[in-house]
Amino acid sequence: MSKKGCCNSVGECFFDYYTSKILVIRSRKVGTLNRFTQALVIAYVVGYVCVLKKGYQDTDTVLSSVTTKVKGIALTNTTELGERIWDVADYIIPPQEDGSFFVLTNMIITPNQTQSKCAENPTPASICTSHRDCKRGFNDARGDGVQTGRCVNYNDTVKTCEVLSWCPLEKIVEPPNPPLLADAENFTVLIKNNIRYPKFNFNKRNILPNINSSYLTQCVFSRKTDPDCPIFRLKDIVEEAEEDFQTMAVHGGVMGVQIRWDCDLDMPQSWCVPRYTFRRLDNKDPENNVAPGYNFRFAKYYKDSDGTETRTLIKGYGIRFDVLVFGQAGKFNIIPTLLNIGAGLALLGLVNVICDWIVLTIMTRKHHYKEQKYTYVDDFGLLSNEET
Amino acid sequence: MSKKGCCNSVGECFFDYYTSKILVIRSRKVGTLNRFTQALVIAYVVGYVCVLKKGYQDTDTVLSSVTTKVKGIALTNTTELGERIWDVADYIIPPQEDGSFFVLTNMIITPNQTQSKCAENPTPASICTSHRDCKRGFNDARGDGVQTGRCVNYNDTVKTCEVLSWCPLEKIVEPPNPPLLADAENFTVLIKNNIRYPKFNFNKRNILPNINSSYLTQCVFSRKTDPDCPIFRLKDIVEEAEEDFQTMAVHGGVMGVQIRWDCDLDMPQSWCVPRYTFRRLDNKDPENNVAPGYNFRFAKYYKDSDGTETRTLIKGYGIRFDVLVFGQAGKFNIIPTLLNIGAGLALLGLVNVICDWIVLTIMTRKHHYKEQKYTYVDDFGLLSNEET
Amino acid sequence: MSKKGCCNSVGECFFDYYTSKILVIRSRKVGTLNRFTQALVIAYVVGYVCVLKKGYQDTDTVLSSVTTKVKGIALTNTTELGERIWDVADYIIPPQEDGSFFVLTNMIITPNQTQSKCAENPTPASICTSHRDCKRGFNDARGDGVQTGRCVNYNDTVKTCEVLSWCPLEKIVEPPNPPLLADAENFTVLIKNNIRYPKFNFNKRNILPNINSSYLTQCVFSRKTDPDCPIFRLKDIVEEAEEDFQTMAVHGGVMGVQIRWDCDLDMPQSWCVPRYTFRRLDNKDPENNVAPGYNFRFAKYYKDSDGTETRTLIKGYGIRFDVLVFGQAGKFNIIPTLLNIGAGLALLGLVNVICDWIVLTIMTRKHHYKEQKYTYVDDFGLLSNEET
Repeated sequence: MSKKGCCNSVGECFFDYYTSKILVIRSRKVGTLNRFTQALVIAYVVGYVCVLKKGYQDTDTVLSSVTTKVKGIALTNTTELGERIWDVADYIIPPQEDGSFFVLTNMIITPNQTQSKCAENPTPASICTSHRDCKRGFNDARGDGVQTGRCVNYNDTVKTCEVLSWCPLEKIVEPPNPPLLADAENFTVLIKNNIRYPKFNFNKRNILPNINSSYLTQCVFSRKTDPDCPIFRLKDIVEEAEEDFQTMAVHGGVMGVQIRWDCDLDMPQSWCVPRYTFRRLDNKDPENNVAPGYNFRFAKYYKDSDGTETRTLIKGYGIRFDVLVFGQAGKFNIIPTLLNIGAGLALLGLVNVICDWIVLTIMTRKHHYKEQKYTYVDDFGLLSNEET
Repeated sequence: MSKKGCCNSVGECFFDYYTSKILVIRSRKVGTLNRFTQALVIAYVVGYVCVLKKGYQDTDTVLSSVTTKVKGIALTNTTELGERIWDVADYIIPPQEDGSFFVLTNMIITPNQTQSKCAENPTPASICTSHRDCKRGFNDARGDGVQTGRCVNYNDTVKTCEVLSWCPLEKIVEPPNPPLLADAENFTVLIKNNIRYPKFNFNKRNILPNINSSYLTQCVFSRKTDPDCPIFRLKDIVEEAEEDFQTMAVHGGVMGVQIRWDCDLDMPQSWCVPRYTFRRLDNKDPENNVAPGYNFRFAKYYKDSDGTETRTLIKGYGIRFDVLVFGQAGKFNIIPTLLNIGAGLALLGLVNVICDWIVLTIMTRKHHYKEQKYTYVDDFGLLSNEET
Repeated sequence: MSKKGCCNSVGECFFDYYTSKILVIRSRKVGTLNRFTQALVIAYVVGYVCVLKKGYQDTDTVLSSVTTKVKGIALTNTTELGERIWDVADYIIPPQEDGSFFVLTNMIITPNQTQSKCAENPTPASICTSHRDCKRGFNDARGDGVQTGRCVNYNDTVKTCEVLSWCPLEKIVEPPNPPLLADAENFTVLIKNNIRYPKFNFNKRNILPNINSSYLTQCVFSRKTDPDCPIFRLKDIVEEAEEDFQTMAVHGGVMGVQIRWDCDLDMPQSWCVPRYTFRRLDNKDPENNVAPGYNFRFAKYYKDSDGTETRTLIKGYGIRFDVLVFGQAGKFNIIPTLLNIGAGLALLGLVNVICDWIVLTIMTRKHHYKEQKYTYVDDFGLLSNEET
């Protein structure tokens, strides 16, 4: 293949065409094996790599933006608050986020807290008998406030260290079961997702072009009947992940709404559609877990008429829905195509190595073939085609 | 290339060098074609794959963190609120987010809501003539509260079902046009972006090293005059995306601020700079859309002197700016380099196959060449170099 | 290798096996060089590409969800507020976010603001001597309100333009040093991370299966003693990034908690564990910076007894912790394996080209070898094996 050391003038050499001298072995056995192995390699390169795995394509990962909008009303009836309505402004915290939304389903409310001193909740660390058991300024990371150094009555039977904190303290109790906002399972969420594949300059939205606005105002996602509707009932999301909404709503949890955009951009653009799946992300197994479920504390602050700041502390349990968008686009590109073709050609060379080995070691006429194939020469002159 | 079945002692075999016997065809036509096709392949591998598409590089995707800080004051004058100033604490909701920020531009305010009973807003589902039309406990997902079962006067002419809800209800009206916070177009946002390519241990910030702090305190991004300034006027962002800020501000929308970091880390680090583009992410076409624009409801909670909780409900319309950071870094790596070189060598082998075919089927002296190239042998003995 | 132009019937051709005729040169020098270069190529393909760089694997990037939960109490004592406790509901803003959390460490509080008119803070732009210096309706983006057109006393010595704004205005002062919530360094954060590699259908959590819940309730992450504990002390996070917490807490900053999941899915699943590193993301260098540190303004809104809205403005400085999850999984796949093997085979072909060149240009018996290797033929008939 090279023009090395061939002739006097480079000009003459340059146009020489070098081709290997070939020995043609007419044998059905070897020929069949050869063609069969070649067919395997070609079927692998063309069929598997190109057609099935799209090895001729360049790929890009998705760039995504998500907005969500929840709708629904929940009714609760408790001794502290009476009959009460909860709407979007009450149960979505914070009111807007990028790509994620939290729905309050249960809570422990501690109203009318003020900065003052009161007895700690009874725990092994806080129970005391005299002032000597309490250290002024001590701040236990798992406690509720900073100790004042006094040991006071928590109730008739127990004494605990007094703390400076938002008093009255939140009680250490389990959240209500059934959950307070049990109606949350009927809430619906509209998910709008805009994706882009920057390398291929391709944009698309999950509200497909064939859907009109009158359909959108009343549809609800259903895998069988309405697979393109971007409005989901929370109960359906949780059930598809094989969870029970009311059970999950007691302590809260984290649900993943996975939107997968795998698109072949050599095909029509209308084939590029999102696929929705749902998965529970937090671990509900209590054995290998700490702080199971999902909750966080937030407060509403007020000022009373004499200017004292009070707050209502809410330990809110609920389900956080994370919208996870992922996917890959592929489009024909000459580089991966020729890379795979090149590798395939090299593998065809390997087929020859294998067939040569069979011809020269296993076949009955192997000596004959060797005579024809090999010419020996050494540092001291031409040898015959026979081995020494 | 292999030492299969060659000689008695492996030691002798091992140092044998196998090279193909070559037929050199001196033909200008074939030679020219051969060199031309080889040159094509080499130009493709070296020029296109290596130089243009940087096939010799390994790649990594960007890991990013973004902080934003908006500045600006808006003045409104309405009958309900009078003349009023809105600053950052009033219009950025929530006050801080990771990689995204929402600017309130318009709103419908319903002040002094309390938990009580009142007549539903008139819709086909809520209009009634007698108590029988209303069902106690009925909770329509698209309604405003839970029905009490009574049919009451909404106004002098219409009767609707009474609901338990936050009353007075929010009116079903279009948001103000022109938008309330029209001044928002002059707000500026400082975007700080820190990126990292973990595979190459490379960090960089979008505030480039050559920029000093006195420039930064007064510059505003402009593609022609200040392309490195990380402070953007909201109106400019929206205009570059070919939208009108005031139109968009009425119902809100979602803007993407795309920061692209495509870096060749074989080049000086100062060449690795961010490229800013802006794009509208939400769909403004009302035909194929539901809930166009971008809005959400939030509330401010108060307690009056007798402890009753009241709230001000705000349906806030505005523009959410998503900062989308993406990009790819490349750096020389031996593996993709040799992969592409190897594939290129295999393609050169394909050139030989094509030239062989031309020589042995098209050229006038093809029989002559065949005689020289091929030696036939079959299972029964050596054939001549002539075909049988 | 091809069956082009070989015989009369395709059927006969198809089973012909084509193999190159080989010249075997018995020379220790050439043979050694040949085997040595082949060994290099094979060592590269097998050792470097396959074993070290896992070139036989297909890869996938991680899909991640993160929840965080901070614990801790801080005590402050200021003249304005007196002795006061700050708990999670007070210092985490907003109360919940996806993958990121902000901890307030310092602040400038401006209580009891109402919408009214007052003198601007003195700056070169706002200082005036008479009403003519102030323009009614002027809204300076860097100012605090909208000018009324009057020049009023700021204090005994200075006059500034009057503005409509939330008055009294926030003072232009440096934040307190030492920071108010200095106790924040002892807060702990529980980070729960759920990852998925969609291509390989592989899920894992950062709370590893071997850890039980009693360990989790009291452990704190330590690189030497407790590397698997998902509870981190904020001070430790900052110190590992070679920063000082108290210094950083004055003006705030942004810390990255990097969780790296590089997994070889051909190995046991228990080998796939997260690696935690910590990095400061914001630029602390004041020279090449604007608005150093990290702060934002938020407000608490109140209504006094006559219905007037008041607010407390808080310029909050603090540390935002961004949890950045990244990583790559690899699993055996036939395509990259055969791609690399194919490229390796082609490189072995290059070895032959180099050895041929050495044999035919450098070796003493090069003429002899050339005679054996090359057969010349041209357009006008067979030439001898000698060059013309």
